[in-house]
Amino acid sequence: RENFIHLHNPHLEKMKEDILYHFALGTGTHDFPALFGDVKFVCVGGSPSRMKAFIAYIAEELGLGGPGCDYPNICVGTDRYAMYKVGPVLSVSHGMGIPSISIMLHELIKLLHHAKCSNITIIRIGTSGGIGLEPGSVVITRQSVDATFKPQFEQVILGKTVIRSTNLDEELAKELMQCSQEMSQFNTVIGNTMCTLDFYEGQGRLDGAICLYSEEEKLQYLKEAYDSG
Amino acid sequence: RENFIHLHNPHLEKMKEDILYHFALGTGTHDFPALFGDVKFVCVGGSPSRMKAFIAYIAEELGLGGPGCDYPNICVGTDRYAMYKVGPVLSVSHGMGIPSISIMLHELIKLLHHAKCSNITIIRIGTSGGIGLEPGSVVITRQSVDATFKPQFEQVILGKTVIRSTNLDEELAKELMQCSQEMSQFNTVIGNTMCTLDFYEGQGRLDGAICLYSEEEKLQYLKEAYDSG
Repeated sequence: RENFIHLHNPHLEKMKEDILYHFALGTGTHDFPALFGDVKFVCVGGSPSRMKAFIAYIAEELGLGGPGCDYPNICVGTDRYAMYKVGPVLSVSHGMGIPSISIMLHELIKLLHHAKCSNITIIRIGTSGGIGLEPGSVVITRQSVDATFKPQFEQVILGKTVIRSTNLDEELAKELMQCSQEMSQFNTVIGNTMCTLDFYEGQGRLDGAICLYSEEEKLQYLKEAYDSG
Repeated sequence: RENFIHLHNPHLEKMKEDILYHFALGTGTHDFPALFGDVKFVCVGGSPSRMKAFIAYIAEELGLGGPGCDYPNICVGTDRYAMYKVGPVLSVSHGMGIPSISIMLHELIKLLHHAKCSNITIIRIGTSGGIGLEPGSVVITRQSVDATFKPQFEQVILGKTVIRSTNLDEELAKELMQCSQEMSQFNTVIGNTMCTLDFYEGQGRLDGAICLYSEEEKLQYLKEAYDSG
């Protein structure tokens, strides 16, 4: 059974052309089904150079690349994001922070829809601090929680707060866990990941330009995060 | 009178070395006063290539550059941000969204402090939609407002909501307005700028991957924004 991408936006049907401004791609200038129709996996991460390194790694793993290969940036017309493709894998950078990721995801989901892709898996790969975990562990996120440890994403739409779910695909988490067990290369756990809107004060760091709390208060916050799961 | 940059963080004094991770600069590896001590103006904007174009423009305006000049990226060790300098002007990219800008500002303010800079002016330059303004107008922001039109910045620190002021420097706004009147090249106004955490749904756009409101509701929201100033 083929699962296509559905867009929850009736306005898009009325548009003659859809320009994905931050990718410098558009349905009037690019043949999306030809360029992206075979994509099955999308891996996203913050840094453009890491996402380029990732596509080179995946190309080797899939037997589709080698030491001399170059992987051109599909979004070469912009410096907002970088995008690379090899076989069924698309690798896209998203910059730092929820708003930057959000723009990328809106345009990525429209891209996959216009390309008539089916049975798509999207995975974010990134570094994170860990609480009560061995450094170097891989965490497969079950649920994303906000800075108050609630499993929800709060967004303001037309001035009104809307709350959306942050549950991720349980089946995918289990499959990834199984892959990791077969490889037995990394300590891997399924857990929750906290996502904040700020790197320094929002995550209790002591080394930002502003820090008005003590080390004890910071540790108390991290302990609460640990206790909440 | 020299105004130095004060950091509101007592923890920093206890640190031997300060690493500005997202600039790939550190007090242990770089001589900040030598590199940045003469900076008086910092101009920041989203895109790295625009901030490079800006430094080339400013260099010509100041008689410090020419058509053959190259401006090396000071943050060449990372792809998180790009930074350029010519004379007293520093030009820094900040990516998209408040969290991305926030990381840059924390590290920029520490950089200016470590470099012992004084009498610094920081200006963000960027494109924006406008409501009830002639396209192409330049808006000098007096106050930044959130998605509910309140002149405040809400931040979650250690799980608690903290509200900070978004008033900008009135004297600077007047000076910039006067510069613009002397040049009389652009329609320029002093006004408020709305800053949201999302580009598509957060700003009432109809062309995101998700849009659950009507065009009438969007226009009603923009009208409220206009009415609120």
